[in-house]
Amino acid sequence: MINVGIVGATGYVGIECIRLLLGHKDVLIKILVSHSFVGQKISNIYPTLRGVLDLECQNLDVDVLTKECDVVITALPHGASMEVIPKLLEGGVKVIDASGDFRYKDAKIYEQWYKVQHTAPELLIDAVYGLCELNRDKIKKTNFVANPGCYPTCSVLGLAPLMNTDYIKKESIIIDSVSGASGAGRKADLGYTVCELSDNFKPYGVSTHRHTSEIEEQLSILAGDDMKVSFTPHLAPFKRGMLSTIYVDLIKETDTDELLSLYKDYYKDNFFVRILDKGTMPEVKFVAGSNFVDIGIVVDKRLNRAVIMSCQDNLCKGAAGQIVQNLNLMCGFDEKEALSSPGLYL
Amino acid sequence: MINVGIVGATGYVGIECIRLLLGHKDVLIKILVSHSFVGQKISNIYPTLRGVLDLECQNLDVDVLTKECDVVITALPHGASMEVIPKLLEGGVKVIDASGDFRYKDAKIYEQWYKVQHTAPELLIDAVYGLCELNRDKIKKTNFVANPGCYPTCSVLGLAPLMNTDYIKKESIIIDSVSGASGAGRKADLGYTVCELSDNFKPYGVSTHRHTSEIEEQLSILAGDDMKVSFTPHLAPFKRGMLSTIYVDLIKETDTDELLSLYKDYYKDNFFVRILDKGTMPEVKFVAGSNFVDIGIVVDKRLNRAVIMSCQDNLCKGAAGQIVQNLNLMCGFDEKEALSSPGLYL
Amino acid sequence: MINVGIVGATGYVGIECIRLLLGHKDVLIKILVSHSFVGQKISNIYPTLRGVLDLECQNLDVDVLTKECDVVITALPHGASMEVIPKLLEGGVKVIDASGDFRYKDAKIYEQWYKVQHTAPELLIDAVYGLCELNRDKIKKTNFVANPGCYPTCSVLGLAPLMNTDYIKKESIIIDSVSGASGAGRKADLGYTVCELSDNFKPYGVSTHRHTSEIEEQLSILAGDDMKVSFTPHLAPFKRGMLSTIYVDLIKETDTDELLSLYKDYYKDNFFVRILDKGTMPEVKFVAGSNFVDIGIVVDKRLNRAVIMSCQDNLCKGAAGQIVQNLNLMCGFDEKEALSSPGLYL
Amino acid sequence: MINVGIVGATGYVGIECIRLLLGHKDVLIKILVSHSFVGQKISNIYPTLRGVLDLECQNLDVDVLTKECDVVITALPHGASMEVIPKLLEGGVKVIDASGDFRYKDAKIYEQWYKVQHTAPELLIDAVYGLCELNRDKIKKTNFVANPGCYPTCSVLGLAPLMNTDYIKKESIIIDSVSGASGAGRKADLGYTVCELSDNFKPYGVSTHRHTSEIEEQLSILAGDDMKVSFTPHLAPFKRGMLSTIYVDLIKETDTDELLSLYKDYYKDNFFVRILDKGTMPEVKFVAGSNFVDIGIVVDKRLNRAVIMSCQDNLCKGAAGQIVQNLNLMCGFDEKEALSSPGLYL
Repeated sequence: MINVGIVGATGYVGIECIRLLLGHKDVLIKILVSHSFVGQKISNIYPTLRGVLDLECQNLDVDVLTKECDVVITALPHGASMEVIPKLLEGGVKVIDASGDFRYKDAKIYEQWYKVQHTAPELLIDAVYGLCELNRDKIKKTNFVANPGCYPTCSVLGLAPLMNTDYIKKESIIIDSVSGASGAGRKADLGYTVCELSDNFKPYGVSTHRHTSEIEEQLSILAGDDMKVSFTPHLAPFKRGMLSTIYVDLIKETDTDELLSLYKDYYKDNFFVRILDKGTMPEVKFVAGSNFVDIGIVVDKRLNRAVIMSCQDNLCKGAAGQIVQNLNLMCGFDEKEALSSPGLYL
Repeated sequence: MINVGIVGATGYVGIECIRLLLGHKDVLIKILVSHSFVGQKISNIYPTLRGVLDLECQNLDVDVLTKECDVVITALPHGASMEVIPKLLEGGVKVIDASGDFRYKDAKIYEQWYKVQHTAPELLIDAVYGLCELNRDKIKKTNFVANPGCYPTCSVLGLAPLMNTDYIKKESIIIDSVSGASGAGRKADLGYTVCELSDNFKPYGVSTHRHTSEIEEQLSILAGDDMKVSFTPHLAPFKRGMLSTIYVDLIKETDTDELLSLYKDYYKDNFFVRILDKGTMPEVKFVAGSNFVDIGIVVDKRLNRAVIMSCQDNLCKGAAGQIVQNLNLMCGFDEKEALSSPGLYL
Repeated sequence: MINVGIVGATGYVGIECIRLLLGHKDVLIKILVSHSFVGQKISNIYPTLRGVLDLECQNLDVDVLTKECDVVITALPHGASMEVIPKLLEGGVKVIDASGDFRYKDAKIYEQWYKVQHTAPELLIDAVYGLCELNRDKIKKTNFVANPGCYPTCSVLGLAPLMNTDYIKKESIIIDSVSGASGAGRKADLGYTVCELSDNFKPYGVSTHRHTSEIEEQLSILAGDDMKVSFTPHLAPFKRGMLSTIYVDLIKETDTDELLSLYKDYYKDNFFVRILDKGTMPEVKFVAGSNFVDIGIVVDKRLNRAVIMSCQDNLCKGAAGQIVQNLNLMCGFDEKEALSSPGLYL
Repeated sequence: MINVGIVGATGYVGIECIRLLLGHKDVLIKILVSHSFVGQKISNIYPTLRGVLDLECQNLDVDVLTKECDVVITALPHGASMEVIPKLLEGGVKVIDASGDFRYKDAKIYEQWYKVQHTAPELLIDAVYGLCELNRDKIKKTNFVANPGCYPTCSVLGLAPLMNTDYIKKESIIIDSVSGASGAGRKADLGYTVCELSDNFKPYGVSTHRHTSEIEEQLSILAGDDMKVSFTPHLAPFKRGMLSTIYVDLIKETDTDELLSLYKDYYKDNFFVRILDKGTMPEVKFVAGSNFVDIGIVVDKRLNRAVIMSCQDNLCKGAAGQIVQNLNLMCGFDEKEALSSPGLYL
């Protein structure tokens, strides 16, 4: 049994971590830190938890966290994480960070896209990028994981099997993505109200979204080459879920069967990546509430272009689910523990 | 052609007035007042209006309003209306007020339920309660209409034909209502976001909602007796629409046919009230976007109780539509002008 | 470890049973019966299950079921259940039936409201009405449970603590309920499409819904008297969840505190019933996906009337969750096994 | 005043035509034809119309239509239109067809993508493709308009200003589109129910959707060259609206300002196309219920790629609105008549 603390427990990533960890046989949720709700029971803020978890939220106290916890999950805004994490690591706990602060190897790229100065660049070299399917072995050995962004998880997993091959024209990658509203976090924002967002659909951050740089860094590592991509996120009127429709020009003759077979082989030992059969496309509904990523592929032979559809729950595999998966790997637990449940379907 | 000014133009009641009045053949929208958006085009705030109405919002200036407008619609929070309206009336314009400030004959009831002091109680006697179907003649002759609340419009119209009869047990009235999210106005409120409200349904203001007192005052006038009712509003995950399910104990033997016939007769000269045929129930979808109120009735002979379902668009007949209907009556236009369109269906 | 078969596995109650039982440490899902999908994998029909449960659906074969299963859950339409269940019981398995066929003690009431003849009335005496909080001891000893309807579960639990008291005027009970769309089951029905139902809200079965009779039978048992109630269901545009707003005239002076305290005491040993603190109302969102029933109470002293709001997930506590709860009781497992998870919140 | 008949009046395109034409000052809706609802009032099928239009639906009778109508709108499934239209045209009425039957100049392309034989290919030469902004003059002179598909309207208008220029790499066009559920028409289909589609999002017809060929034919005409495009439609959980995110590789240095200026110039005399200012993106909500197409552009200079976002209401500009716009042009009415209203906003 290990003790876990969650910093930023009352945001949507926090509550999703709580939901998942309540079903974890080797984890005790020991400390919840929430700046805004100190002294209040988590079950007052999220009444789903009434009678299930009535723990009080505390102020951030690194000494308490390092003394009482084995693992600390930080679900803080970017900028805030890099203030806290060096002290947590010094205190000897394992840390999984949900922010963008430690996802890059190069602080300059971070600073350029996030418009803040990095105050702990020396830790970037130690932080393991927690995309479990790609970095499993490193994660098992580290004390510090930078949990990937939601769009990068979805997009990089959708492209990984092709990156180091001679199938694709590398400058042709276009990632058109759609996310549910929870991706923006828990906040009172007019644009996210039922009156303004339901029955709506809109692009945002076109060509400028921060996750572009994270996707590019990861694809570059996989390709062994400098990669650039078009990335257009859209906001859709639902709570959870994310789908990336990815277009890649092919420079070698191939077909749907061949690429599906390549993907199935690439992910054969990865429970949470499901490569769909030919003719089957992923749907947000089929992954919502679970840690799965569903990937479908169509090769359009008329145009010699591949269309790859990668789909996940932005809050689960795209955030809290992958946090728990990382925790399992870091602590030597079964990777699937607390994560094997399918979604709700409805 | 008359000139109309709208004070509080950028709220949901304001934009709905604009939408309707743009289709009015005798109205020119002359002035839009919005405290928060002075100097901005209304079409920047509501981009549906791009190229249709690009008028700039102004600060509140009573002199300008009274000089340039024939009718001023005030869509302000309660409390704010009573500061402005006395001056507008002095300036000689017709006024239609969307707030609760002038709906009561008795300032004490207002003060008790709204928890503010009334600063213009002398105007309460002049204000006509603008429930068009019940007060049409008075509205035609007045310069000042207090537009009814959404729940009161729906509920009072649903009960009016019975109030002065010997069918009902007067202390037995229970009004169980459901409203869409637009009823709360345009605001950045966590509880109204897609993440918190979609797929949710909840009661609020149970036994304490202000509209209880407005419903009671109107029913008392109709009954010639002091009326009290149970009123429970609920919030549902859609934008527009309101349905009241009303329960009344019967003290005389009757049946569905007889009550439907009584209602059809009562409303026979009222285009916007549609009494449904036996076995047909109203649905929010059938009135959304229109000025209609649909009413269905079932008499449960097992229990000798009537169930009356009254349904409208809270923003239209429950607010802006009735404002336009009042404007038509006050200005001698066809009561249906700008209001004869059915809703969108989808 | 017990083996469980689910007959009618591909309906919404079936898939919800599967979702819950996959998390049950003492249950193996052994057989899935589905008339319409024989030979197909359940994960083709519900792709959330891909890689989690890829069992094939079979035809109904009582011999196979009784030989291979310890418990059989029948999630069939009413009328179909009573054909199958006698044979299953003869075969010696425990049976939990989700239909209305065995919920009544009096076949005549069933026949009157369901308009079919009962073909196994002799079993009505043996069937235990599976409202766990009220009949826990009987359920522990029986082989045959009739799982309650969704509206009855919600409504009867909301009224039970008052039924055998002198607080209420028994002929005054009015139950105004709202259900999500999953209550109608999985079917291609125009009225349930996004185009027709989203942004809609409507009453149905006013004064004639079958569950009226089930609620009345249970309240009569509790009150020791013949009870009749007004019951109006409404359909709301969400998938899961149910809220009943219940009105009762009081014939004794009381207040909110007193009734809350009475309820808390009544349900003190029942994990799944949460009596909310004064001023707190239940919301569909807070129970969706879980087996909890949340109950809030307001006594309106102006009218001497209690408003009781009872809220649950219609598919979970209102169907599959209670089935699993009954299974736990019948098999001697912890009543909370596979049911202790809070809902998703979002 | 002209008389209009609508064949296929009870589908979603039909009801939307009715809604719009009810506000047309020079049109009388004379005949409604509906195979499935002969003898029933249209207001029974669409209760929004109660008291507004209570016309009875009739069987299809070409003689009656040609005798009583000046214009006939055919909103039939493809295949059915080509059976009826030759006779209507012989009868001397103007025809606007909503199906795909007469949109192509080359019957072979139609037959290849629609998998049916064309039975009236001789009419293809006469039919004018009713994309009003591009073919206004031809439409004014014809008796027969093939109303464009929803995706083609949105996509072709989004690309038209670039097609005959040297800015773009012609083989690079990728159109990623999202549509609301009404695009599939009015039907009882499990996949479109609230339980299955709400909170869901999914691609369909990837690389195989029929509209691909219609888009390609129109772009080829504009470019004077053989054009091929990637087209991926997605289904989103709302009723109305469509957004195409279009990617084009640039082969000339340019920037957002320059392309916006080119677009504004190209569409300067077209009321219904709104080119948005730099930094402003279109949203489904801002066009829902109106005949507008909103277009936003971002040139990503990092990649030398243009991202064009084109947004409309699939039922209005994408179907019924454009039908009315075509009717206005064909009959010499103001092009904006019955179409100048902004959408509902909410």
